[in-house]
Formats: sequence, structure tokens, C-alpha cells
Amino acid sequence: MPSSQAPSPTQAIRGRLFWFDADPEEAGDAAAHMIEDGLLTIAEGHVVAVGEASALLKTLPADASVADHRGNLVMPGFIDPHLHFPQTQVIASYGAKLLDWLNAYTFPEELKYADPVHAARNAIFFFDELLANGTTTAAVYCSAHPTSAEAFFAESERRGTRMAAGKVMMDREAPPRLIDTAESSYRDSKALIAKWHGRGRQLYAISPRFAITSTPAQLEAAGALSREHADCLVQTHISENDAEIAYAKQLYPECADYTAIYEKYGLLGGNSLMGHSIHLSEDERRRFSQAGAVAVSCPTSNLFLGSGLFDWRAMRNPERPVRIGVATDIGGGTSYSMLATLSEMYKVLQLQGQKLPARAAFHAITRGNALAMGLEAKIGGFFPGAEADVVVLNSGATRAMAHRMETARTLDEELFVLMTLGDDRAVEETYVMGAPAKRRLAPTARTR
Amino acid sequence: MPSSQAPSPTQAIRGRLFWFDADPEEAGDAAAHMIEDGLLTIAEGHVVAVGEASALLKTLPADASVADHRGNLVMPGFIDPHLHFPQTQVIASYGAKLLDWLNAYTFPEELKYADPVHAARNAIFFFDELLANGTTTAAVYCSAHPTSAEAFFAESERRGTRMAAGKVMMDREAPPRLIDTAESSYRDSKALIAKWHGRGRQLYAISPRFAITSTPAQLEAAGALSREHADCLVQTHISENDAEIAYAKQLYPECADYTAIYEKYGLLGGNSLMGHSIHLSEDERRRFSQAGAVAVSCPTSNLFLGSGLFDWRAMRNPERPVRIGVATDIGGGTSYSMLATLSEMYKVLQLQGQKLPARAAFHAITRGNALAMGLEAKIGGFFPGAEADVVVLNSGATRAMAHRMETARTLDEELFVLMTLGDDRAVEETYVMGAPAKRRLAPTARTR
Repeated sequence: MPSSQAPSPTQAIRGRLFWFDADPEEAGDAAAHMIEDGLLTIAEGHVVAVGEASALLKTLPADASVADHRGNLVMPGFIDPHLHFPQTQVIASYGAKLLDWLNAYTFPEELKYADPVHAARNAIFFFDELLANGTTTAAVYCSAHPTSAEAFFAESERRGTRMAAGKVMMDREAPPRLIDTAESSYRDSKALIAKWHGRGRQLYAISPRFAITSTPAQLEAAGALSREHADCLVQTHISENDAEIAYAKQLYPECADYTAIYEKYGLLGGNSLMGHSIHLSEDERRRFSQAGAVAVSCPTSNLFLGSGLFDWRAMRNPERPVRIGVATDIGGGTSYSMLATLSEMYKVLQLQGQKLPARAAFHAITRGNALAMGLEAKIGGFFPGAEADVVVLNSGATRAMAHRMETARTLDEELFVLMTLGDDRAVEETYVMGAPAKRRLAPTARTR
Repeated sequence: MPSSQAPSPTQAIRGRLFWFDADPEEAGDAAAHMIEDGLLTIAEGHVVAVGEASALLKTLPADASVADHRGNLVMPGFIDPHLHFPQTQVIASYGAKLLDWLNAYTFPEELKYADPVHAARNAIFFFDELLANGTTTAAVYCSAHPTSAEAFFAESERRGTRMAAGKVMMDREAPPRLIDTAESSYRDSKALIAKWHGRGRQLYAISPRFAITSTPAQLEAAGALSREHADCLVQTHISENDAEIAYAKQLYPECADYTAIYEKYGLLGGNSLMGHSIHLSEDERRRFSQAGAVAVSCPTSNLFLGSGLFDWRAMRNPERPVRIGVATDIGGGTSYSMLATLSEMYKVLQLQGQKLPARAAFHAITRGNALAMGLEAKIGGFFPGAEADVVVLNSGATRAMAHRMETARTLDEELFVLMTLGDDRAVEETYVMGAPAKRRLAPTARTR
């Protein structure tokens, strides 16, 4: 929706508008925009204009509604480029590292998503939870069953959210009722693409789980899908932990390293979201950079499963920069909150003597993740024509935050308090295409 | 209060009583006690009896009050053996490692605690926050100003909480108005001990901050205080990060390692809480074990400041076991919640290929930390005569927890959900000496 043909706004959101139109690690402070009393005007779910409230209020028709969030930060909705829809009841499963964790906890849970009723019910929870945390777009793995992707997209369509998702392709190293075949995974993915990709705000992500659970024939099929549907995302996992890497190499002995497996089948490209990417060699990073592939870091998961520490600085090497995403990886991750995810990202980098400034962090979960998903022309910023997905943040939402904010003097301090102490309570409201979308949690019942 | 002379109970708490009377890492499942419909009967703030509600209800007089928490876990109040009262507005300070963090953020903030009004006001917040998180006992560093310790103890006395605290002794390497002298720190500590140690539930902790900020003369004075008041705790910091270790060794060139500094001045004993203890050598661990000193791990802080990973397994070596505590270390730490602290402890151990079972974790923050503080005869368990400090936990307090609990089948799973996903919202109520003590947070105002 180019601004030249923008219709007259019918609604607006007022508050401390804050967004990025460049990367603060490259462009410095000029990358960020802050309007203390700002107005975002909206028509038909899209941004019409962004500016000072004092000026823009005059452009609104008399019957336009204005959501008043003065005092609160108003940012583009958060984007989570790696999590698993069928793992909401896997979170907080005790005591395993990746491969054992998959077998002991994850696969038994994902089996349940063959049932469309179970999938539909949990999709409601999943969207409630994401929106409660201010996440309006995500790249999502469904189970291997087409039913799970159907349930996911149906719920996303109901919510009006921009989501990318795909049924997992997985034809070995998992329970019989959880696996597909190279042929069926190709056919089922193809059918889902035909039905859902580009329907409203829904996007398809071709989703071979990882090299261990796919035969060469299936990776071949995934590569074919990617060639045939070049506007779909590809998402997979790579170099998460040592045992996984060793086993992947054993299963693909002809490939020199893990990255070479995905290269061989045409799965490392500019639309590829490569989950984890922890233990890449310098040569693999160079090839990621050349291919334009995105290394998606999942800090709460990497700590929880003891997988290792994502090397941000190495990725950002300006001589061969690797694109970065930051994600929750529910259910290996331990929080749906992108704020909590930033807090753990900061800790992962501190352990390596690296820094994550608050602006770089908030850029990462808005414009940065939009870039990672190739959606920067639609979401992740406030610009005319942008889809009006918005999160409203209260930096004093909890007692501890309000107390700490008493001494915060700068926006950077405020942002750092939000990412260090914040969780879903800091999300005052979430808007999807301009409509309020955060459901309040009803008072909880007792446990039993 | 031996049970033989226990008065008749006047109140009771009903719920899923859960506590330890041994260490599950040594005694296995027999260490834990669970009574699904249990009753804790209380007289004058002390436990009279613990058992099945069906039996014990009959022992209550007709006018006794029964707090009904059926369905919720009821545990001994949490114990936090290392945090800093004057650092509640230091939390979430960006970008530094230990020594820079002290100079840039912490010392300027601690300076404010020379003002008794500021100290008294923030003491109210501090106790509100601890009790909201279910923490009923802590070992606390005040600032170097006696005023801060006065404010702390006065508030603790008002709340009726069992606390150990001390004014920090610090006579160099800090701003002029923040330091004392060897002589004044001895005199002021001595006066505070005379006034507060053993008054009601208050206990004094002799608190030389660490070797870097104390001259040899001050450590000598701290050692003298410890000899003269052998029933006081000693608390200090050791081996938190590499730069600190190197500087400490430089300041005490005659000592072979960091531990030797505290040994030299008689500060490594069975009443010593040694904060952090991350980078100890095997020889230092052996001497900790012989001395009976406690290594207090502060996982959220150690990750936030990038200090390093606490080696639990090495401490637990049965040939020379080192006593362990687990603490928040506010304001280097990022959460007041002992549940969130356990979550990070788990992650710290996962990164090292070590495990922290849920029972070991909950033991650590109740009976384990009571043992660390030498208070196991008074708190940390449910036994006749125990002080009735209690935390009531709702495992389904948030949407994400309630959803996850749908599939939890065992107590261990429930405990692990609580520690992985829980925060102050999971604390349904906190009792101090049998009295409800959790203040509800009023609806928050907007940030600005």
C-alpha cells in the first residue's frame, strides 16, 4: 500500500513511538527514531503516517478512534523467527541434551498433533501466548502431520497475524507415526503451499527438521520444493550441539561439514533460517555469508539444553557478515517473551566477553528479525504502508521494574531495564493490523 | 521451643506440604516429604505439628484459623544467602564486568544509603519484593554506612523476618564518602552487633566486601570481630572473575591464592558465606571443605556479569565436599525470585554437562540454604519448633505454566515447571511466623 494511494486514516495509536529504519550496529544512534508524544495513524490495518501527535491529530477525521498509550513505549510488534508450535507442553522438560530431549519428550508430544482437535485447541493457546508477549509474527515449525499445519494456519488466519509456518519434513530417526516419507513430505508440503502460502498474511516455510531426521532423498525433495517455490522460506536446524553435529556428519559422510549437507541439497540460501548455528567453523560462516543465509540464535534454549554459546561477534565480522535472527525456540527455549530472550542473549554474549547494547537488541527483535524473514517491506518498522502490528510496553509493569525505573535517565537505560527484567507483564497491549489482540489472563484456578 | 512444651496451636496452614529433612543428593527420595492434604499447625509463630489434615484438624481448638491452600504446594520459606540491600536500583545496569560495574553503577548507588530516609524507603521496597517472591530469610550486605544497616534491621524487625545482615567493611578502592577505615569499620560493626545480633530474629553478618576493597588492617579487624563474635556469620566475595582474582593477588602478594587471603585473616570458617567461588582451584576447594566454608553460587549474576560458571559437581566431590548455597546476588543478579535463580542454576550446570534435579534445587533454596547459614534448627523445614516461615506455590500461576502443567504427571515434573517457568506470580502467599506477609502489587501507573 504505497502512501500515495493511502486512504484516510480511521484510527490511531498514541504513545512514545520507537522504531528503527537501520541497524544501530552499523548506523549508530541515527538508526533509531523516537517521538515522545507520537501518533501512528492507521487505515485498513496499515500505517498511513507516523509523526508528532500535535501535527497528526489534525489529519484524523472526527470519528477516528485514538488509542491513548501516552507514557508507554509503542514499537513494531516483536518477531520470533524460530519456535515450535507442537512443543508448548514440552517446555521445562528435565535433564536432557538435544538428541535425548527429542526422543524422551518432544517426539511423544508431537505425536499428539496428528489429532486435529488437539492441534486446534493448542493453537488457541499458542496464539494467546504469543500475542500476550507482544509477538505478532513468527517462523514456526508444526509437527510432521499436515493437520498441525492446517490448525496453525487456520488459527493465524482467525487472528489476522502474519505468520510463516510449515509441516516438519522428517522421514527417519523418530517414532513410526511421527515420520513421513520423502515423497509424502514433498506432496503434503506442496499441497499446504498451494493452500496457504500468500493467502492473506500466511506464508509457508519449507521445514526439513534437520539432517539427522531426513534421508538424502527427503533433503532432495526439500531442495526441489525450495526451487519450485522460491518465495517460500526454508527453515531447519544446524550445529546445535556436539553429538548432533557428529551424528549428522556420520549420516552424510560425503559432506565435509554440517553446512555442506544443506548446501548439497540447495537448502542454504537467502531465504534460509538456520536455527542455532552455534558451532559453525569460520569456513562455514563464510559460506553462510556468501549464501545470505540467516543464523538464528535461540539463547534460552541453548542455555537450557546446554548446547553452547552463539558467537554474535564472529557472525557480524564486516568482511563476511552473516545475517542474524534472535528467537525463543519454544519448547527447547524457556520463555515466550522476546524480552526475556534478549536478556539471555545478553548473558550468552557476556560469557564470551561480547556486548549486546539495548538498541541492537530491540532492533534484532523488530526490524532485524523482519529482515531475517525477508519481510522488512511489510513489518518491523513504522513507515507508510507498513502492516500495523504494534506492541505497547510498560517499563514499570512490575514492582521491581517500577522501582528500578525511578533511577533510569535515558532511553537506553529504559530499554535495558525492559529486556533484563521484563516479561509478558510489560506488554500493555498488542495490536494486529491495528486491532487490540492481547487477551487478558483470567484469574487462575488452583493447580489441582 | 521443643515440642514437649509446645503450646496448643491457634492456627494452621492446609495444603500440599512439601519439605526436606535430608539432602536428596545424598539420601535420595527419602529426603523429601510430601503430604498431599497436609496440615501445619502453628502456635505463637512456631510449628507445633505437621501431618495429615484428616488427623491434625481434630487437634485444633474450635476457634483456630485454618488457611486453606489445598491444591497448592506449601513449602518452607525460601532462603537467599547472598544479596545486596543497596543495589535494588543497580539491577539491569548495562554492559560491564565486575570491577567496572562496581565503579560505574554500584558505588554511586550505595552512596545514597548514607541518607537514612533513602535507606528506610528502599528497605520497604526490599522487604515487599523479597516476601512477594517467597523469600523469608536472607544474608544481606548493606552499604558501608551504619545507617543502611540500621534501616535494614529496623524494617526486618517490623516484618518479623529472620535476617542476617551487616554493614559492608570497605576502606579502599571506592569513592571517599563510601569508605570507612579499619578502625571505624570495627567499631561500627561492633556497635551494630551489640544492638542487633540476636535481637528477636535479627542476626549479624560480619561483611568485609572483598579483599580488593579492604586493606590488610581491615581484614585483620574483620578477623578480630569474627573471633570475638563467633556466633555471627561472615560474608564476603571470592573468585568471581578473572580481573578481580588477578587484582586481589596483586594486592596480597604474600598469599599463594585468593583463598589464602581470607585464611590469613581467619575469615574462612564454618560460618563463612563465600560469595561466587567460581574459579577456585582444586586445592582451594580442599581448604574450603576442611574449613567448612560455604561456596555461595549466584547464577543470574554470574551470567549477567559474564563472570563464569559455578562448578557444582566439583564442590560436591564426596572426598572433600564443599558446602553450597544458591543465591540471587541482587543487584548483579537479575531476579529476586529464587525460582528464577534455580532456572539459571540449571542452565549454568547444563553448559558444563552437569545436572540439577528439581529436588536438589528445591532442597538448596530451603533446607540447603538454612544449613549454609547455620539455621537448620530454626528454619528450612517443617518440624516441631520450627519458625513458621512458609511459601505457598501455585504451579499453574501463569497461562504458560497452567498449559504446561496439563501434561505434568509427577511431583518432580511439577517442581521443574515451577523452577523453569515460575516467578513471583507463582507465589500465592508468604507467611512469616505464621502471618500472611505477601503484599499485593497495586495496579501500576504508566511509566511517565
